[in-house]
Amino acid sequence: MEEKRTEISELGEFGLIDRISQTVEIQHPESVLGIGDDAALIDSGDHYTVLSTDMLLEGIHFDLAYMPLQHLGYKAVAINISDIAAMNAVPKQITVNIGMSNRFSVEAVEAFYAGVRAACENFKADLVGGDTSSSASGFVISVTAIGTVKKEKAIRRSGAQSGDIICVTGDLGAAYLGLQVLEREKQVFLTNPEMQPQLEKYDYIVGRQLRPQARMDIIHELDELGVVPTSMIDISDGLGSELLHLSRASSLGVRIFEDKLPIDKQTYDTGYELGIDATTAALNGGEDYELLFTIRENDLEKLKNHADIHFIGDMQSLKDGNIMVTKGENVVSIKAQGWDHYSR
Amino acid sequence: MEEKRTEISELGEFGLIDRISQTVEIQHPESVLGIGDDAALIDSGDHYTVLSTDMLLEGIHFDLAYMPLQHLGYKAVAINISDIAAMNAVPKQITVNIGMSNRFSVEAVEAFYAGVRAACENFKADLVGGDTSSSASGFVISVTAIGTVKKEKAIRRSGAQSGDIICVTGDLGAAYLGLQVLEREKQVFLTNPEMQPQLEKYDYIVGRQLRPQARMDIIHELDELGVVPTSMIDISDGLGSELLHLSRASSLGVRIFEDKLPIDKQTYDTGYELGIDATTAALNGGEDYELLFTIRENDLEKLKNHADIHFIGDMQSLKDGNIMVTKGENVVSIKAQGWDHYSR
Repeated sequence: MEEKRTEISELGEFGLIDRISQTVEIQHPESVLGIGDDAALIDSGDHYTVLSTDMLLEGIHFDLAYMPLQHLGYKAVAINISDIAAMNAVPKQITVNIGMSNRFSVEAVEAFYAGVRAACENFKADLVGGDTSSSASGFVISVTAIGTVKKEKAIRRSGAQSGDIICVTGDLGAAYLGLQVLEREKQVFLTNPEMQPQLEKYDYIVGRQLRPQARMDIIHELDELGVVPTSMIDISDGLGSELLHLSRASSLGVRIFEDKLPIDKQTYDTGYELGIDATTAALNGGEDYELLFTIRENDLEKLKNHADIHFIGDMQSLKDGNIMVTKGENVVSIKAQGWDHYSR
Repeated sequence: MEEKRTEISELGEFGLIDRISQTVEIQHPESVLGIGDDAALIDSGDHYTVLSTDMLLEGIHFDLAYMPLQHLGYKAVAINISDIAAMNAVPKQITVNIGMSNRFSVEAVEAFYAGVRAACENFKADLVGGDTSSSASGFVISVTAIGTVKKEKAIRRSGAQSGDIICVTGDLGAAYLGLQVLEREKQVFLTNPEMQPQLEKYDYIVGRQLRPQARMDIIHELDELGVVPTSMIDISDGLGSELLHLSRASSLGVRIFEDKLPIDKQTYDTGYELGIDATTAALNGGEDYELLFTIRENDLEKLKNHADIHFIGDMQSLKDGNIMVTKGENVVSIKAQGWDHYSR
């Protein structure tokens, strides 16, 4: 008798996580929020402890051909802090596990940790532990971040109400196009190692790929302005995918307007050059590590002059679906694409 | 000009961790204890939050040729809980990150998580998060465990005093010899795939390798008996290496007696068969996941009838060195060997 074999690509990453989480039993009442948000919430008396973890694997999440180790260390921390930010929390501690083969020197490891340290200083997180191990093949990184948030300020994906305004920070699609440029230059280099990479005119988008920032600045500003978003998520897999997470968690539909999407000129220009539509890059590209959140309509006044927060649409009833109104005033469905590594 | 290149094997894992930890700056007073113990301690008001993390990599820490995925899931959790136990804390939450290639099916992932779940139930930890990703090479696992301990009961490696009695739980060296048997059977199988593995007479030592237990039972019993050890560490890299950690952290010497080391008969017998000295396996084998701790002499009375706690020596002044008195009454130095994957 043959054993059943289901390919992971049939379920996708989120389907797999769903299936795993269905079998989980919670034994401690302190475990307030588990699998299915940006981070877990643990009741710690007067506050929640916020816990987030992520793995970065060579050949899947990064390519050392163009990712300097120092940037990699920075990025590994930043993307975890971004998950802490998405709960409206502030980071406190991180741990970093790495596995690497003996092709790496002590100096290479130190370059990686110099990036970790820079991110720790920038985001005010203490490196309190971790594991270093040899690896039989590639470079493997796993980071865990711990943060804290006052109970009444913790934000889940599920809190949006119909009529809430959808906000995004910064701009979108740049990191994805930066990656395309780096991939292209790598191919040029492989063909002709004497060619120097031409990256000057792509400085912004390449920087967005190599050195993403967690938007802790926005978290502090929202606090100062007295605005508590109703739901929040960070944009790691592309705006489209994250909007669908908010929709599902809040049991509401989303409506966004293409002409409201914040996209940098260099993203547009490079997209034009490479034949990649900038809106598609914004929706499906990923790795922006900006914040996507919803606010009550009457909080709009407090945020409307903020240079780096953009209002791209609103929450609507579930039956109205998840839609984008295009520049040509057509209505298209928002579909999940994101970074589904299994289906590559 | 050539860049300097230092091989990681020149420093070893602990040398590398030392070098990294020297550059770490702590910004939050809540980060009470960081790199250099079994787990980090974070001040959470009336208690410490205890944080431990570990990575397991295919081809380095496990071989799927003889490690069933369900056991692997169990072990990945248990070895992290063991670090929580070593702080005298109780586990509360865990997160599990995995990376695997598409050679694994959904059913394989479910088998892994069935083991994770069994360990969570056994050790009373809630699975609250994690990441699943594809991997370009092997199976990669990173687990983070969170626990809590009352402040006055937290035990560091550094608290031992001269004259304290050195205790170990369970027995030592079995997991290492179990691994040797599994490796031998694998080679037999590779030579002749029709051969069935002969493991019955090695059931105990193979079980110690495939399904290690975190000694939470001992933590609860110590609490009931009113004994707070003065220092503690779990035995993951071999008794010798862990004794040297206690010595260094406490600025004391250790003296142990070979004839007091708890070693199972199957470990002795298999060691004899394979030509591996059982004492060497106990000192340098690793993966026992038992507890090594020190107690004040006047606590001995409370523990002396405990069937699973063994008194193997005592702490002495630093100038008297780290020594083992052999069965033949010779005195030998204890050297670090352990599992130093880099030097393989």
